[in-house]
Amino acid sequence: MTMRPPADLGMPVDQIDTPALLIDLDAFERNLKRMADAAAAAGVRLRPHAKTHKSPTIALKQVALGAVGVCCQKVSEAEILVAGGIADVLVSNQIVGMPKLRRLAALARQARISTCVDDVVHVDGLELAASEAGAQIEVLVEVNMGGNRCGVEPGEPALALAQRIAKSKHLRFAGLQAYHGSAQHKRTAAERNAEIAQAADRARRTRDLLVQHGLPCPAITGAGTGTFMLEAASGIWTELQCGSYVFMDVDYARNLDDDGKPYQRFEHALFVLSTVMSRPADDRAVCDAGHKASSVDSGFPVVAGHDEAEYVRAADEHGLIRLKRPTNRLRIGDRIRLIPGHCDPTVNLHDWYVGVRADRVEALWPVAARGALL
Amino acid sequence: MTMRPPADLGMPVDQIDTPALLIDLDAFERNLKRMADAAAAAGVRLRPHAKTHKSPTIALKQVALGAVGVCCQKVSEAEILVAGGIADVLVSNQIVGMPKLRRLAALARQARISTCVDDVVHVDGLELAASEAGAQIEVLVEVNMGGNRCGVEPGEPALALAQRIAKSKHLRFAGLQAYHGSAQHKRTAAERNAEIAQAADRARRTRDLLVQHGLPCPAITGAGTGTFMLEAASGIWTELQCGSYVFMDVDYARNLDDDGKPYQRFEHALFVLSTVMSRPADDRAVCDAGHKASSVDSGFPVVAGHDEAEYVRAADEHGLIRLKRPTNRLRIGDRIRLIPGHCDPTVNLHDWYVGVRADRVEALWPVAARGALL
Repeated sequence: MTMRPPADLGMPVDQIDTPALLIDLDAFERNLKRMADAAAAAGVRLRPHAKTHKSPTIALKQVALGAVGVCCQKVSEAEILVAGGIADVLVSNQIVGMPKLRRLAALARQARISTCVDDVVHVDGLELAASEAGAQIEVLVEVNMGGNRCGVEPGEPALALAQRIAKSKHLRFAGLQAYHGSAQHKRTAAERNAEIAQAADRARRTRDLLVQHGLPCPAITGAGTGTFMLEAASGIWTELQCGSYVFMDVDYARNLDDDGKPYQRFEHALFVLSTVMSRPADDRAVCDAGHKASSVDSGFPVVAGHDEAEYVRAADEHGLIRLKRPTNRLRIGDRIRLIPGHCDPTVNLHDWYVGVRADRVEALWPVAARGALL
Repeated sequence: MTMRPPADLGMPVDQIDTPALLIDLDAFERNLKRMADAAAAAGVRLRPHAKTHKSPTIALKQVALGAVGVCCQKVSEAEILVAGGIADVLVSNQIVGMPKLRRLAALARQARISTCVDDVVHVDGLELAASEAGAQIEVLVEVNMGGNRCGVEPGEPALALAQRIAKSKHLRFAGLQAYHGSAQHKRTAAERNAEIAQAADRARRTRDLLVQHGLPCPAITGAGTGTFMLEAASGIWTELQCGSYVFMDVDYARNLDDDGKPYQRFEHALFVLSTVMSRPADDRAVCDAGHKASSVDSGFPVVAGHDEAEYVRAADEHGLIRLKRPTNRLRIGDRIRLIPGHCDPTVNLHDWYVGVRADRVEALWPVAARGALL
């Protein structure tokens, strides 16, 4: 059920079939290096989030540039990453149910595996599975950084869980999962500064309480593409989990930097290549990429290089483009590059990355963990 | 890269791993029969839209109940449906580019294949590909029914295209694609009545003009789950393309019927089975199905059978559920059934259907055309 790739290696870009998930390899490699350099300069570890790209190929490139390993959200993603050669994987999520726990414990005999808990139910399940498998699993206590999703509250609740982990024979207390997801997309630098300052206070209080009770935190891990410079400079976080920086998307590009200008630390490196399939009216074009090709959960894609063209409506297999002024550049058969509204779920809709450089197809990489839900 | 199925045949429902795409087989079979009966009673052909289910297994069940064939939106979907035993497939979309056109023409040597055009570019491409392959392709002129997506305007523009098809040696003029997509989701019966009355006028005028010029329309095809009774009763449409009726979703269930009550002709038969993975606060549960498991393009899923629980936020792999009053029914590890906001793109996120009846897994069907983008 893996679909055919939309291109062959060496093919000119204008022969790629559409819709296709394109990586501009030059921009992508610059993004990889910029983040690696930023983490190194700040003296923090980098553990990129592989839920963005779902690709051991890309994860290995991140590790080659200094990343200590990767994160992911599902046990099935971790299986694919370990099988693809990644030796250190954090499942930055709560894992529930013996089938998944047993698979995680089996994986912990092949690689360094860590995961998160916010309840004793998770700790006891992990201990049982690790004990059955004769494995050791590293466990982080997830602390609510203010995003109000998962995570125990800072301080005493985190201490109680950490003590439970420390007492579990086959688990090792590895520190705090301190990710503030909703801060990533606050539009102004001032808002993001305030959110991360508050999160830093939560993480610091919890860390200090644990140290007082003889439980030092080897890792305080979190941060995303929107805020990582703040966590890196805080003196609290030891590890960054940024994911989207490899590709950038429309949503992250809406963030404003300290100077009030759009956030330009990373370049758009991911595109959905699409073909104009209908031009039913002068002010309207329809392309072959709808929301089964480019996810709309964080807004519509943007048509790169065509400021006269606005993607205004998505159906399953149609993208409706309004033309603000007459153009002869968007005829039936013409190609456009869409910058996805949100890169992670867009990647998850495709089976193949088509890596392009100098107008040629240089790479075809499977989206190996596409659809890895379990 | 096909993911493992989340269940085994014969397994009790409470052992299915999550997230999983569940079909309630009893409700599903009732939906299939109700639509087949309605089309038969109205004396119109039924050609269900397979973009909803992407499954030859389900398409064959529709054909067994009298459907003349199916529609789909992509050539790659048509390839999978024909390979799965469907002998008559309409690609209800414009096909652009010789690679796709050649694949379609090759398919037309194996099955009855039809498709849509709204420009001479499409007609000439189809004729070239059909001529190369020695195939015959049936071609419908898509007419804009008022939804302002694809389609020529009614009347003269449709006539000109139909004449071009009729003159093409390897094409056969098959009638009008007359689908009014945006009418499907108008909430009140009065709005839908008005939209389809207008669409009927457009289709009738075009049909009559073509007949005057010696071009009868063997098919006038369109309609969806929201409006099909109107098209069926119109005396204009000869064929219905409903898709979502097999599963129903939250969005269609928001439509109101003539009596102002919610539209209940079909039952919810598709669910995303999910596990509560975190209960960080009394008023908050987090489940393991985010927008990579249940598409949010038409709104959030609804938690079936739990009126105290509202799905209020989706992240990639987390669903945030607000609890309106205290409950002890949603503990960590408890299972919930989510009714997807929109069934078509939700199905496209999964590799397997898990068909359940009487609390057992009775069927495992691949979502064979999942990710069929080309």
